[in-house]
Amino acid sequence: MLRDLAPPHSHPNSDLLVGFDLSDDAGVYRLSDELALVQTVDVFTPIVDDPFCYGQIAAANALSDVYAMGGRPLTVLNIAGFPRRSLPFSVLGDILRGALSKTHQAGATVVGGHTVETSEPLFGLSVTGVVHPNRIATNAGARPGDVLLLTKALGTGLISTAIKREKCPPEAESAAIASMTTLNRNAAEAMMHIGIGAQAAVGGCTDISGFGLAGHALEMARASRVRLQIDSACLPLLPHVEELARDERFVPGGALRNAESGADEVHLQSNLPAWWRHLLFDPQTSGGLLIAVRPDDAEALQRELKTRGAGATRIGCVSEGETGIEVL
Amino acid sequence: MLRDLAPPHSHPNSDLLVGFDLSDDAGVYRLSDELALVQTVDVFTPIVDDPFCYGQIAAANALSDVYAMGGRPLTVLNIAGFPRRSLPFSVLGDILRGALSKTHQAGATVVGGHTVETSEPLFGLSVTGVVHPNRIATNAGARPGDVLLLTKALGTGLISTAIKREKCPPEAESAAIASMTTLNRNAAEAMMHIGIGAQAAVGGCTDISGFGLAGHALEMARASRVRLQIDSACLPLLPHVEELARDERFVPGGALRNAESGADEVHLQSNLPAWWRHLLFDPQTSGGLLIAVRPDDAEALQRELKTRGAGATRIGCVSEGETGIEVL
Repeated sequence: MLRDLAPPHSHPNSDLLVGFDLSDDAGVYRLSDELALVQTVDVFTPIVDDPFCYGQIAAANALSDVYAMGGRPLTVLNIAGFPRRSLPFSVLGDILRGALSKTHQAGATVVGGHTVETSEPLFGLSVTGVVHPNRIATNAGARPGDVLLLTKALGTGLISTAIKREKCPPEAESAAIASMTTLNRNAAEAMMHIGIGAQAAVGGCTDISGFGLAGHALEMARASRVRLQIDSACLPLLPHVEELARDERFVPGGALRNAESGADEVHLQSNLPAWWRHLLFDPQTSGGLLIAVRPDDAEALQRELKTRGAGATRIGCVSEGETGIEVL
Repeated sequence: MLRDLAPPHSHPNSDLLVGFDLSDDAGVYRLSDELALVQTVDVFTPIVDDPFCYGQIAAANALSDVYAMGGRPLTVLNIAGFPRRSLPFSVLGDILRGALSKTHQAGATVVGGHTVETSEPLFGLSVTGVVHPNRIATNAGARPGDVLLLTKALGTGLISTAIKREKCPPEAESAAIASMTTLNRNAAEAMMHIGIGAQAAVGGCTDISGFGLAGHALEMARASRVRLQIDSACLPLLPHVEELARDERFVPGGALRNAESGADEVHLQSNLPAWWRHLLFDPQTSGGLLIAVRPDDAEALQRELKTRGAGATRIGCVSEGETGIEVL
């Protein structure tokens, strides 16, 4: 909607390095030749029962948009909606404490926040980070020949739905929570260490969130005008996710909407069963980074990611050809 | 609540120049000796029926926190909660268009935003501005001897309540809307022109919002450890506000809560009728700036404000003595 209201060309501002025209994870605004702000805001309703954990996930999720651009988070504003008549105020405290723990882990500082009364809890963060204007990891930076790495396993949407239906295997729940509360900080620092930029090792990056792996990969393919090939056999999955994806009860509405809107450009090889779309389009919360890296640097980046404790799976590659995604 | 969770001294960060410990309008974070970020977030439910106008007011209100610190807004993130099942999507478009018009008027750039589904509409902005680290107008900067100027008339809370009760004189409604949609940009630029800082003309500033004139003046008095004297006869009021303040039906709940929490430190001269508290504590939306300026510079600032089309009423002065507010 923002794109229709304010097409970037209608208000040319040479300092807006990354706007909302190419569906990037965050906006980037140049302050000087050496320094740009990376900014994002994300707010959502609880996806787990524990308020501390909800705060942690909301913070990791919002901070991730800055990491996905190759940025370093500096400041955080908390945004809360709270039903003070139906929930004890201490719940809000627990949410804020959870968010604070992740903000500190990111090395960022809380500068303020705002709470409004709502009928159900809402929580999120507005995050500001910094990045060098020449070293931004955008959706538009994937180059034919690049290798695709993914830093977290998939399936948090399916697992969250199974939790809501009270049918989630405990092992899957705890793995999803561990994944969603993990910052993408180490993954981002590995990218920065190896080098980000059009002529550098890492060309482009995005984090996997509400549109699912295929949806975000498609945004990268469109922005970079390339074709992404994803090898289904290589995709890292959280425990029990395959069985959840086969069962319609656990498929989030978002996965179906994502699959519908990507239908024309995301092509599954005919031997893949139909429920694979549920996995590929499963909306993720606080998902991993999808990184496009030069083939000669892929191994070094994988080593760097592993050394820093971030997952790193090679899931495909970038090629020329019609814009879109091919899943083999 | 943030103050209890993360007392600033527990995580010393010398770059956090203004945190949330002294109830300032926005947080200030130093990037260099020459440059600091001023950041704020504010979200609220509609206070007028017209969605475009609601967007304008929400934007003017959030931008005001940056102006109140002597900052210049640079970037904006929009935050919306929207009941897509009960309202046509075009309403959200109108809200965003209203906000965009004020963001452009402020010379700021929209870098992104986020919308979440809620049961009633919510809208607000996270705003980032810049300020020189030595020229910040904080709550803590009022000095004994300073003159107090107020740049907008009071009464938007009383008028909003009368609008809800469908008893608002049209003249009051249009005056309140004109006031709430007016940016504090000209007022802030007048302060910057005259000079802001401990040794400069303008010592401190705050904008008048949810706590009302007396509530925000009290925060300034506490942070600056001074006593503020306010002359009730000088207070600028929106049309019909006096008659609304006399009628209990139009007194917002927030005014009563504000008056209660400020009761010990805000003293009204005994000849003032009780309903004066309704005016003094009336919660304002997108209210004016309360500026503490050196007496020798007060006239020059008033001229500068008027030249730039901002209101400017001398409403009192700062003195030594017990922390608090005295209304004569």
